[in-house]
Amino acid sequence: MLAVTILGNNSALPAFDRHPTAQVVTLDDYLFLVDCGEGTQMQMAKYRIRRSRINHIFISHLHGDHYFGLIGLITSMGLLGREHDMHLHAPAPLKDLIDMQLKVADTALPFKLHFYPLQEGLIVEEEKFRVQCFKVNHRIPCWGFRFEQVRAPRRVNPQKAIEMGVPAVFFDRLKRGEDYTSQAGVLIKNELVTHAAPAPLTYAYSADTMYDERIIDKIQGADLLYHETTYLKDLADRAVKRYHCTTEQAATIAQKAGVKKLIIGHFSSKYEVLHEFESEARAVFPNTELALEGVTYRVLSS
Amino acid sequence: MLAVTILGNNSALPAFDRHPTAQVVTLDDYLFLVDCGEGTQMQMAKYRIRRSRINHIFISHLHGDHYFGLIGLITSMGLLGREHDMHLHAPAPLKDLIDMQLKVADTALPFKLHFYPLQEGLIVEEEKFRVQCFKVNHRIPCWGFRFEQVRAPRRVNPQKAIEMGVPAVFFDRLKRGEDYTSQAGVLIKNELVTHAAPAPLTYAYSADTMYDERIIDKIQGADLLYHETTYLKDLADRAVKRYHCTTEQAATIAQKAGVKKLIIGHFSSKYEVLHEFESEARAVFPNTELALEGVTYRVLSS
Repeated sequence: MLAVTILGNNSALPAFDRHPTAQVVTLDDYLFLVDCGEGTQMQMAKYRIRRSRINHIFISHLHGDHYFGLIGLITSMGLLGREHDMHLHAPAPLKDLIDMQLKVADTALPFKLHFYPLQEGLIVEEEKFRVQCFKVNHRIPCWGFRFEQVRAPRRVNPQKAIEMGVPAVFFDRLKRGEDYTSQAGVLIKNELVTHAAPAPLTYAYSADTMYDERIIDKIQGADLLYHETTYLKDLADRAVKRYHCTTEQAATIAQKAGVKKLIIGHFSSKYEVLHEFESEARAVFPNTELALEGVTYRVLSS
Repeated sequence: MLAVTILGNNSALPAFDRHPTAQVVTLDDYLFLVDCGEGTQMQMAKYRIRRSRINHIFISHLHGDHYFGLIGLITSMGLLGREHDMHLHAPAPLKDLIDMQLKVADTALPFKLHFYPLQEGLIVEEEKFRVQCFKVNHRIPCWGFRFEQVRAPRRVNPQKAIEMGVPAVFFDRLKRGEDYTSQAGVLIKNELVTHAAPAPLTYAYSADTMYDERIIDKIQGADLLYHETTYLKDLADRAVKRYHCTTEQAATIAQKAGVKKLIIGHFSSKYEVLHEFESEARAVFPNTELALEGVTYRVLSS
């Protein structure tokens, strides 16, 4: 199961009760925080996010609307008694900033905070998931993330396998896709006694970026793509100037990358209502949803 | 007129929809922000504080619940087009932190941010108000502030003055308290033709502090005192250990300093309801109010 819960959907600053960027990504039993604008810890309380279950935080870039809430969140985690490790993946200068803020407060966190400066490529690889990091095109260094389930082993039909003479000790090799040949030389093709696990789910987060087709191969085929749409399509000039995207541009990227579903967000504070974001994006890429705060967008394994 | 609007009344971290410390002090036409916990800019929007009218910000110390909202507030002021100067009075290390945060974002504020490292004594002196700074007793360097109206000139009764032969050109000297002697040698005592302006109003903010009678002479006689009460009186031991105060201690300080009214706040997140703070403090100092978010506590000139 893949799910994305929006905690903040606004760009630059809070407005109209919309908050700066933050979202919680759930991949099966794992929770990740992606970006952490001011007020994220309050939004987590409001939407009942179990922060103790978050062990990885990803910060796309160092514009304040994407990280000003981080120091408050991690120090609050400390005050609330967190003891288990936290893994923070963020642009390199953030480490000094955090160290300085802890130092002036004469505060030591009661948990270990591992810091990993962002770089392109595979940045997390665990048994059940992996995270890829890729550059996007913004005014300052900025990265997107691709979260992927690790493909599960094939699933054995044990009754059928035993009927066909495959011993149980061979089941692990069946799961890896091997065929079985009996001592009498009879070949049992793997697919007769197994079936494929569901396809691994993929979520791509493109952070803040101007329209740039170089990211397409990084987000290709994702089950769910979050792409920023700071502006409606009539402000394409302003979007370029500020290294952001319009509805039409985000939807075009989604279409060209063949993703299954698009979530759009990072709305400029100049817009009080959002329905035109939805209609403009859907005109290009019909399976688009607005990122709305408190809403969880789910994709189930097929 | 003196008024204090509470934007955050909780200690350490947000809880029960209470926010970390921030308050707006109004002295006649002047607005000051005192401390700026995370979410202060959202609280300002909620309670319709006209942030463009704030020209001085005071940060008592560098525990996060007193300043994590500052960088978001000042960068938002920039994004919203502020052009007039801001004066920031704060512990010295905050300057480097702000500079670093602006640098990594490749951002320049469109207004001038003057930084004044805190020190004891008179830190602001303008025509209509002055601000004194004093040390309090906390785990890290921490300061309180005393905001004072400057005593207004005496008020001339023009009709009476003219009747008694004082020429209008002398009125400015009457306002300063001088007597008038006519060319014929007749003395007109000042108080016959003037009366005193209302007594200047004073607000004292004692920040985070353990019980310490050395602050009494700094807050002596204030019209309004804000004093922290992180704990109820049964937790006096914990209060000492953490350099905080109980209800009883805050009320005792108010009483010994002869202030007119006490506001208590900085409530620990261990308390969901607050009524015992009120009753415990009032048992010692009856004219006590709880600092409640969104509420403005006013004192009118007598």
